[in-house]
Amino acid sequence: MPILTSEFISHSFLELQAFIVKELENTDGQSRFISDEWVREEGGGGRTMIIGEGAKIIKGGVAFSKVEGEITSLMRDQMGMQGQRFLATGVSIVIHSRHPMHPTMHMNVRYFETDQGEHWFGGGIDLTPIYVDIMLAKTFHQSLKLACDAYAEKAYHQYKAWADDYFYLPHRNETRGVGGIFFDHVKPGNEEEKERVFAFCLELGRLFPVLYAAQTATEFSKPTDQQLTWQALRWSRYVEYNLLFDRGTRFGIISNGRTESILLSMPPVAHWKYNYHPEKGSAELQTLQYLKKDVVWL
Amino acid sequence: MPILTSEFISHSFLELQAFIVKELENTDGQSRFISDEWVREEGGGGRTMIIGEGAKIIKGGVAFSKVEGEITSLMRDQMGMQGQRFLATGVSIVIHSRHPMHPTMHMNVRYFETDQGEHWFGGGIDLTPIYVDIMLAKTFHQSLKLACDAYAEKAYHQYKAWADDYFYLPHRNETRGVGGIFFDHVKPGNEEEKERVFAFCLELGRLFPVLYAAQTATEFSKPTDQQLTWQALRWSRYVEYNLLFDRGTRFGIISNGRTESILLSMPPVAHWKYNYHPEKGSAELQTLQYLKKDVVWL
Repeated sequence: MPILTSEFISHSFLELQAFIVKELENTDGQSRFISDEWVREEGGGGRTMIIGEGAKIIKGGVAFSKVEGEITSLMRDQMGMQGQRFLATGVSIVIHSRHPMHPTMHMNVRYFETDQGEHWFGGGIDLTPIYVDIMLAKTFHQSLKLACDAYAEKAYHQYKAWADDYFYLPHRNETRGVGGIFFDHVKPGNEEEKERVFAFCLELGRLFPVLYAAQTATEFSKPTDQQLTWQALRWSRYVEYNLLFDRGTRFGIISNGRTESILLSMPPVAHWKYNYHPEKGSAELQTLQYLKKDVVWL
Repeated sequence: MPILTSEFISHSFLELQAFIVKELENTDGQSRFISDEWVREEGGGGRTMIIGEGAKIIKGGVAFSKVEGEITSLMRDQMGMQGQRFLATGVSIVIHSRHPMHPTMHMNVRYFETDQGEHWFGGGIDLTPIYVDIMLAKTFHQSLKLACDAYAEKAYHQYKAWADDYFYLPHRNETRGVGGIFFDHVKPGNEEEKERVFAFCLELGRLFPVLYAAQTATEFSKPTDQQLTWQALRWSRYVEYNLLFDRGTRFGIISNGRTESILLSMPPVAHWKYNYHPEKGSAELQTLQYLKKDVVWL
């Protein structure tokens, strides 16, 4: 049986990126990704693919990277990493939609290895609607459950709860969106297990464009000013989450990663209003009521 | 000699806030602050004063708070605090200007005390122009030097260098603006010294509205689209700094502070563009060239 090397994994992630990019271009139907290849001084590099000003996608990116380096004391403290050197490879996506009735969507799959022989996978997909549509949130979670069930019994329930805890803004007492799945430090016990976890990661990656197409299938007429204002306010919460809490963002900044690739998750625009509360009975307030942990979407 | 109690210090900070608010209203000439008083469940509270949509000020706040609580393990790790309980009181200001030729300005003075008998002051003022005006940057630093010289020899040079290091975005390799002064953990050795440091903090607070008036004295005609776009891009860097690095923001979020008061520093709007670089020879590129450490402004 061939050994699943880090070379093979990172090569598969690179192919995954190409697949996702093609599919998202088909869904958008107008804009095309541009590609930025970069090399990291300390070791490794990546290919960042960026799209903007599309029919459906207003700003987004699909980033591949494979980086190596020294495990710093900051990484030891903040991420519990041991050993002297690490290797990290993965694909990371954030897509912001043009229309406020279309969501922001995120996917990440990643593989870590240290020179102490430890290795693990992590990943997740989550959905951040500007306005929550209950049916769309349900179909999103149903698709994730199917993918999880094919991988491991109880995986959906475990990873869904993990996502509720992880994609959470404590200072706002709200979730980033309607959640999804999240997992980290999944350490396979043997080679067979490693292949299974890796196959699951690839499956999640391939699922992303399918889910995005489903979330943006309905066309809407010109958005109102109120919808656009709400979109910019919700995007400010996305900024807060990513800069204050997101592990990938903080790891990237700490480990001297490529800033423009790390911050491709930023929305095109964000608004802050002091102490803003939506009106009683409004669609905006209704959306806030769904941004809670432990909502059962199935 | 009367002992400088935390009650006296916080009361003086509250009076300082009222003074600054009145002066800023005079300078703006159009908008008025609104006041939000709040109580913190774990102990203490504050008065947050907010202004927006003014003639000169587009969004800003002057926040007073006095909070008490338990020193958590996170505060021990991240801030090196010892003991069981802390008390923190201070005034914090961020003002974003309407016109792109007018700057964002920040001031903070604060006092900490632990139940181990330790106490210290911190503070700072810094200037973040959207477009750097060399003369205005110079007069800003000259005023700070005068205030520092009256307090202690070499204070300006020490605190100016500290500001260069502190108000710095490593992932962008740029300073937040043209700097100013910053100091932290200044522990007075005796009562007389404590009064001197405290007087310096009050002096900085009273200086803030004078400096803001000087920075915004010139009136400009209607801004161009290019200037407004640049303003929103520079404001995104302000967001990045405050959410990724600013100690006050991170301390506030970690210690379960009042979110709307902590995040009053956010600009009204922020834009992100992937890998944006200003054109050669442009005013925008010229500004970037001044966002470096160790610029001698005197």
